[in-house]
Amino acid sequence: MKKLLSIGFVCLCPIVFAQKKPSPGNLVQYVNPFIGTGAVDKNSLSGSNFPGSTVPFGFVQLSPDTREAPDDPASGYDYNDKTIIGFSHTHLSGTGVADLFDVLMMPTTGAINLAPGSADKPGSGYSSAFSHKEETARPGYYQVMLKDYNINAELTSTSHVGLHRYTFPKSDESHVIIDMDHSLDKKRGYWSCKIVSAQIRVIDDHTVEGYRVLSGWAKLRKIYFHAEFSKPFTSSVLASGSRRYPDLSIINGTNLKAALNFSTKDKEQVLVKVGLSPVSTENARMNIKAELPGWDFDNTSTQSSLQWEHELAKIKIEGTLEQKQIFYTGMYHAFTQPNNLADVNGDYQATDLTIANAPDKTHYSTFSLWDTYRAAHPLYTLIQPEKTAGFINSMMRQYDTYGYLPIWQLWGDENYCMIGNHAIPVIVDAALKDIKGFNQEKAYEAVKGSSITDHPGSPFTTWEKYQYIPEDIESQSVSVTLEMAYDDWCVAQLAKKLDKTEDYDRFMKRSEYYRNLYNTKTGFFQAKKKDGNWQEPFDALAYGGNGGSPYTEGNAWQYFWYVPQNVSGLIDLVGGNTAFNQKLDLFFSTKDKPGEVNGNASGFIGQYAHGNEPSHHVAYLYDYAGQPWKTQMYVAKVLNELYNNSSSGYSGNEDCGQMSSWYIFSAMGFYPVNPANGVYAIGSPILKNAQINLGDGTVFTVDVKNAGKQNAYIQSVKLNGKSYTKTYITQNDITGGGKLEFVMGSKPNKNWGVKPTDAPLAWGY
Amino acid sequence: MKKLLSIGFVCLCPIVFAQKKPSPGNLVQYVNPFIGTGAVDKNSLSGSNFPGSTVPFGFVQLSPDTREAPDDPASGYDYNDKTIIGFSHTHLSGTGVADLFDVLMMPTTGAINLAPGSADKPGSGYSSAFSHKEETARPGYYQVMLKDYNINAELTSTSHVGLHRYTFPKSDESHVIIDMDHSLDKKRGYWSCKIVSAQIRVIDDHTVEGYRVLSGWAKLRKIYFHAEFSKPFTSSVLASGSRRYPDLSIINGTNLKAALNFSTKDKEQVLVKVGLSPVSTENARMNIKAELPGWDFDNTSTQSSLQWEHELAKIKIEGTLEQKQIFYTGMYHAFTQPNNLADVNGDYQATDLTIANAPDKTHYSTFSLWDTYRAAHPLYTLIQPEKTAGFINSMMRQYDTYGYLPIWQLWGDENYCMIGNHAIPVIVDAALKDIKGFNQEKAYEAVKGSSITDHPGSPFTTWEKYQYIPEDIESQSVSVTLEMAYDDWCVAQLAKKLDKTEDYDRFMKRSEYYRNLYNTKTGFFQAKKKDGNWQEPFDALAYGGNGGSPYTEGNAWQYFWYVPQNVSGLIDLVGGNTAFNQKLDLFFSTKDKPGEVNGNASGFIGQYAHGNEPSHHVAYLYDYAGQPWKTQMYVAKVLNELYNNSSSGYSGNEDCGQMSSWYIFSAMGFYPVNPANGVYAIGSPILKNAQINLGDGTVFTVDVKNAGKQNAYIQSVKLNGKSYTKTYITQNDITGGGKLEFVMGSKPNKNWGVKPTDAPLAWGY
Repeated sequence: MKKLLSIGFVCLCPIVFAQKKPSPGNLVQYVNPFIGTGAVDKNSLSGSNFPGSTVPFGFVQLSPDTREAPDDPASGYDYNDKTIIGFSHTHLSGTGVADLFDVLMMPTTGAINLAPGSADKPGSGYSSAFSHKEETARPGYYQVMLKDYNINAELTSTSHVGLHRYTFPKSDESHVIIDMDHSLDKKRGYWSCKIVSAQIRVIDDHTVEGYRVLSGWAKLRKIYFHAEFSKPFTSSVLASGSRRYPDLSIINGTNLKAALNFSTKDKEQVLVKVGLSPVSTENARMNIKAELPGWDFDNTSTQSSLQWEHELAKIKIEGTLEQKQIFYTGMYHAFTQPNNLADVNGDYQATDLTIANAPDKTHYSTFSLWDTYRAAHPLYTLIQPEKTAGFINSMMRQYDTYGYLPIWQLWGDENYCMIGNHAIPVIVDAALKDIKGFNQEKAYEAVKGSSITDHPGSPFTTWEKYQYIPEDIESQSVSVTLEMAYDDWCVAQLAKKLDKTEDYDRFMKRSEYYRNLYNTKTGFFQAKKKDGNWQEPFDALAYGGNGGSPYTEGNAWQYFWYVPQNVSGLIDLVGGNTAFNQKLDLFFSTKDKPGEVNGNASGFIGQYAHGNEPSHHVAYLYDYAGQPWKTQMYVAKVLNELYNNSSSGYSGNEDCGQMSSWYIFSAMGFYPVNPANGVYAIGSPILKNAQINLGDGTVFTVDVKNAGKQNAYIQSVKLNGKSYTKTYITQNDITGGGKLEFVMGSKPNKNWGVKPTDAPLAWGY
Repeated sequence: MKKLLSIGFVCLCPIVFAQKKPSPGNLVQYVNPFIGTGAVDKNSLSGSNFPGSTVPFGFVQLSPDTREAPDDPASGYDYNDKTIIGFSHTHLSGTGVADLFDVLMMPTTGAINLAPGSADKPGSGYSSAFSHKEETARPGYYQVMLKDYNINAELTSTSHVGLHRYTFPKSDESHVIIDMDHSLDKKRGYWSCKIVSAQIRVIDDHTVEGYRVLSGWAKLRKIYFHAEFSKPFTSSVLASGSRRYPDLSIINGTNLKAALNFSTKDKEQVLVKVGLSPVSTENARMNIKAELPGWDFDNTSTQSSLQWEHELAKIKIEGTLEQKQIFYTGMYHAFTQPNNLADVNGDYQATDLTIANAPDKTHYSTFSLWDTYRAAHPLYTLIQPEKTAGFINSMMRQYDTYGYLPIWQLWGDENYCMIGNHAIPVIVDAALKDIKGFNQEKAYEAVKGSSITDHPGSPFTTWEKYQYIPEDIESQSVSVTLEMAYDDWCVAQLAKKLDKTEDYDRFMKRSEYYRNLYNTKTGFFQAKKKDGNWQEPFDALAYGGNGGSPYTEGNAWQYFWYVPQNVSGLIDLVGGNTAFNQKLDLFFSTKDKPGEVNGNASGFIGQYAHGNEPSHHVAYLYDYAGQPWKTQMYVAKVLNELYNNSSSGYSGNEDCGQMSSWYIFSAMGFYPVNPANGVYAIGSPILKNAQINLGDGTVFTVDVKNAGKQNAYIQSVKLNGKSYTKTYITQNDITGGGKLEFVMGSKPNKNWGVKPTDAPLAWGY
C-alpha cells in the first residue's frame, strides 16, 4: 500500500483503446473497460474490474479470465497478466472477493488440451498468450487475438446470453473448449468452493447444454446453460477429470470439460451463443429465444452499446478527454450491477434457495451494500429511479424469505460480508426521496425488522442492552457500533415520515449510541468491554482487518469520522469546530505506520485512504466546521491524483460502483456525506459542465468557470442565478431542475461557505 | 464377521412388542419394527432398520435416533444403545451408508440444553436414557418413555407429515427442542456432509417453519418444514452454534437449534405435527393441509396402520408366529421404500437439481438397485404392479435429466454407490411381464442409452473394446464385468420383444463377455489386465471392499456364480453338472480365512455369505445341475438359521427390502435366480400356506404338507393339481392364479426335480 502511494500513478500501463468510428455525441466512446482491470504492481490493489461485455444491470458478464483459479483480482482479469485462460460468462466488478466465472469457453487449435493452463506459465494448458496491442474493449464488445492459436476472439452479450465470434485460421484441428470446472480456487479451499454437481450434454452437432451447482462465496449457485454453434462440430470429446470420452453425448461429474471439434478454413468464423439461467436449461433456451434468436454479432454488439449509450446519456458532461473517460467508465462500472438474476419469465433462486417468480421479471442481486450505500445508491435514486425501486423490491424479497434485509447479497444469497445493515439507508433514502414503485409501509416493516432481529454481525439485543457493542462479545465492535447507530438514524427518519413516533424515539436514541464509545481522553472511538472498561492498549494507527478487532478494514483514525447522521454532534464531541478542523488536518497529514496497514486500505493522503470506503466522506467534513476550502483542496487532490484513465485507474477495489460514484458526484462538485438525508456537501467541481437528465425533460446543470487542475478552490457559487453561500445543496434543488454555477480559482476564497453545514436538519426532519 | 457366525443367533436381545388389541385376521400385528434394528454385538452388521413410524412408500420416516451423528447403523437407531437423542423425520431402512435424519425434535424438561448428547454418555445434552421395556413399535406407531424427563413420546405419520404426541410431567420448564444440525457425522467429514444453509422461523406461538440445505451421501438435499404445536409455547430460544437468542423470530445459519418452551400439567399432552417438503415451506404447509389438517393422533395412527394392513394383505400366510413376524416385517421393510419424494401437488427435486412436477403426483427415489433388483423388484411386479410403473417412470426421469438410469438413487440424486446398471433388469423385467403404466419404447431407449453411454463405473467403450473390463483401467473389474454382462442380457431381451434384432444381437454378444474373465486353470473369474494377462497373484478367498479390487464386497468364490442369464453356460464352463455341483459343495463348506473378510460379508455358510447380495441366488443353483435337494437343504438352513424375529433378525444390512424379499420368496418355496426372466427356481417352502393376491380376485396359492424345520426336503409337487417335476415355476404360472402344492419330508427325495433347469429358455425367449 505504501508502495502504491509512493509510486503514485506515474507508472501507467499503456491502454489500447480502439473504437469503431465513434459518432459525434456518442458517449460510449469514452468508456474504457480496461480502467480498473489492473494494479500498478503485484502488491497494489486492483480496481478489480473486468474488460468483457455486459449490458447495464445484465445477468451475463462475458469476459476473459487471465487466471486459472481466479482469486485476486476478483474479476478474474489482471491487466498485468500475459495469458488468457478463456472466456467465462459471469463476473463480479470491483469486489474484494472472487466468485462466479461460469461456463468458460476457449477456442484453440492443434491437439486437444483440456488443462486450463496457468497465468504463470504462458502456453500451458489450453490458455494462450495475448497482447494488449491486439486487444479491444468497449461497452458491449471485447476482442483479443489469441496468439498461440492465431484465433481472433470477439465477445458481445445481451442480458442473459453471451455471443462469441471466433475467427479461426485454417486447421483440421480447431476446437472450442468448454470448462465447467473453472471457478475460484478450489485447491486452496477458497471460500470452501466446491462443485456439487455438473453436467455437459451434447444435444446435436451444433448444440450443447449443461449446468453446474456449486458452493463458493455464494453458498449455493446453480448455473444452467444452453449453447448453440453457428457451424456444426465434426466431433466432440467430453472429459471428467483426466478421463476423456470421445463422442459421448452426456457426462455428469464435478470436474467436467468438453472439446467441440471443427475443421476450419482460413479466417472462418464460428459463432457460439450461450444462454444462462439460474433455474434450468429449459429457461436458458427460453432466454436465448427471447433475446438472441439470430446470429448477428455486430447488431447484438450495437444493441448492447446502445443500451449503454442510453444509460450514459443520463449525465452529459464537458471536461477533458481523461475526465470524460474516467467519468463515463465510472457510470459504466456503476451500472454493471446490481444484476438482474431473473430469467426473462421472472424465475429466480430466492435467498431460501427455493425457485420463485418475480412478476416484474426482475430480481436484482450483487448488493455490495457496505460500499454502495454511500454514493452509488444515491446516484441511482437520481438517474435510475425505476431500477432503484427494483433493487428495493428485490432486497425486500430477502426480508420475506430470510427475515432481514441484505448485508452483502451475492447471486440472491446472503454472505454477511462486511458489517452494518446498509440496505436500510438505501431503502430509507429512496422512501424519503419518494421513489415510486415500492410499498413504503412494507419497506418500513423490513427496515425495522432488520434492526431488531438479531442476526450474524447484528446483535441488536446486545446493542440495546449495552448501548454499544462490547468487543468481548462481538468483534469489529467500534465499526459496528458506529455503523449501526447510523442505520438506526435512518430507521428513525422513515418512522417519522410514516408517523411512527414511538419507533422514531427508539431509533433516534439508538442512533446516538456512538457516543458511548468515545473516549474523551484519547479523542477517539475505542473498543469497550462488556464490563464498561476500555480495551487496552489503544493505538489510533493500529489496523483491524476484515473481521478484525476492533475496526473493520481500518483504524481509529479512519473510523473517527463515521457519524454522518450527526456531524455537528461529532464536532461537539471533540470540542467544537476548531478542534474538529485540527483533527481533520492531522488526519490528512499523519503518515501511516509502515507494514501494518490493512490490505484493503490504499490511496493514502495521511491517514485518509481513498482506496477503501470508510474514508469516502471525510474530505467533505471541513464543510461542516467552517473550512470548506480544505474540503475543496482534498477533494480536488483525490479527483486529480487518485483516479486516472489507465488500467490502474482506481486507488483500490472499485467496489461495485462505489469508487466510481464518488468520482461522478465529486467531479460535479457535490457528494452525499449522509447518504440518506437528501443533502449533498459541496466539494470541488473539476468538470466544465454537467447536465443531469432527471427524466421528463428536467435537467439539473452544473456549470463551472475556470475549471482546471490548478483551480481547486471555489470563488463563488450561484444556484438558479442567485448567489449561494451554503456548502451543500439538497435533493430538491437537484430534482426540481435548475442550475448550479461555480467560479473556481487557484486560491481559497475563505469567505465563501464559512457557515458550518448543519446537515441532519437540512432535509427538513 | 466370524464372531457373528460362531455366535450364530443365540444371544438374542429381548424384544418388547406391544400391540393394541390386534383384531383377528389383522396382519400388522405380526410386524415387529424392531427386527433388524440391532446387531448381535458391536462387531456385527445390523439390519440397519429403524423402528419408527412410516406409511408404505412414504416421504416421512419418523423415528428415534440413538446416535448424535449417525453412521453405523445407517438407520440412526441401534437396539443396543441406551440413549435416545431425539426423533428425526427421515431415515433410510437397511442401507450400509447413512444419510437424511432431517428436522430432529426432542421433548425435554428442566434447564434448556441444546447440545445433542451422546450415545456413549447417557444423560448428556438433551438426550435421554430409555429402556426397551418402555418402548413400543408397530406400523404407524412408535412409543418410548424418555426416562430422564419422564416424558412419554409417541410418534405416528402420514406420507409427508410426522405427528408427535408428548405426554409431559408437571413442569414449568417443559421444552421441545428442534435440532436442524442433526445429520450424519460432519466432524469426520463423513461423505463430506455439510449444511450449506438452514433456517428456523417462529411464525407465531404455535408455529415454526424452517429448512436446511445440505450435502451428504446425497449430493444436495433441501428439506423445508412447517411445524404446528397443539399448545402455544410461552417462549422460545433460537440458537446458532453456541449462541442463544431468546424470543428471536428467525435465525439463519448452518448449526441451528430451537427450544420451544411450555408450562405443563402432569400428564399434559402436547402434539406437534411436522410437514416436510423438498421444495418449499409453502409446500410443507400444503402437505399438512392435504394429509393431516386435524389433531387426531390415534386416528392418524390407525389410518397409517390400515395402509400397512392393505399392503400386507397382498400375501396371506399360515405358519408359525415367528415365521409370520419375519415374513410380514419383511413385507413392511420391502414396502418402506422406494419413497415418494414428490409433494402432494407433484413438485419434486429432479436429478439435475431443478424443481420439476410429476403429473401423477409421485416421484419415487431411494433405489438401492444393486440390492433390490434381485428379489425386491420382482416381488413388486407381483404385488405392487402400479407402484412398479411409478418406480420405472421415476427412474426414467433420471434418464431424461441425467442421461442414464439410476445406479443408486438417493433423494432423487445419483450417488453411484455399488456397480452395474441394475435399473435395467428392473425395467426389462417389468416390461417383459407387461406391467402397465409406462412406455416400453421409451423404456427401451433409456435401457439402451444407459448401456452405451459411458458413465462413472460403466465404461462401455472399454467394455466393447476389450470385451471385459481390464482391472488396470477400472477397479472392481471382475464384478463389473459379470454384472454388466447380465444387464446386457436384459437389454437384449427387451430389444427382442420390441423387434430390435440388431440390438438384440449386439447385447446378447456382450452378455457372454463374462467368459473372457474365466480362467480355466483356476476355475474362477479373475481380473485381467488390458494387455490380456491375468492379474497375479490370485487368491480365491481374498476379498475386495466396496470399490475394492477386483471383486466388489466379495471374493472370487462369491462372484463365481454370477451368470444368472446363462447358468447352463456357466455349468459348461466348469465342465458340466457334476463339476458344478462339486464346486457348489466346496463353496458351502470352505471356511473363510479369519481376519480378511470384507465388512459387508456376513451370515456365512462356508463361503456363502447371506449377509450380502452376491450370494443370494447361489443356493438355488443346485437346481440347475440336477441336485435340487441341496438347494432345499441350504435354502431351508438360511431361512431357519439366518433370519429370526429379534432386533438382530437379519444376517447383514437389510438393504431396502432385498434381504426381506429373499425371505418372502424363499419361505413360499421359490426365488427369481435371474430377476428378469420370469422364472422362479424352487427351493424349500417353510410356510404351511401362502396366498398371493394378484388383484382382480386372482390368487396364487402355495400349500405345504409337513412344513417344518425338520422337513426341508421336497418329496413331491403338484401344480394346479397335476404332478410337477420341474425345479422352477414361471411368472405365468403365478399370475394366472392357481395352486402349487408341496409335500415335504425330513430326507431328500433325490428322484424329484433332477432334470437340470434350463432357465434362460423358460420365459420363451
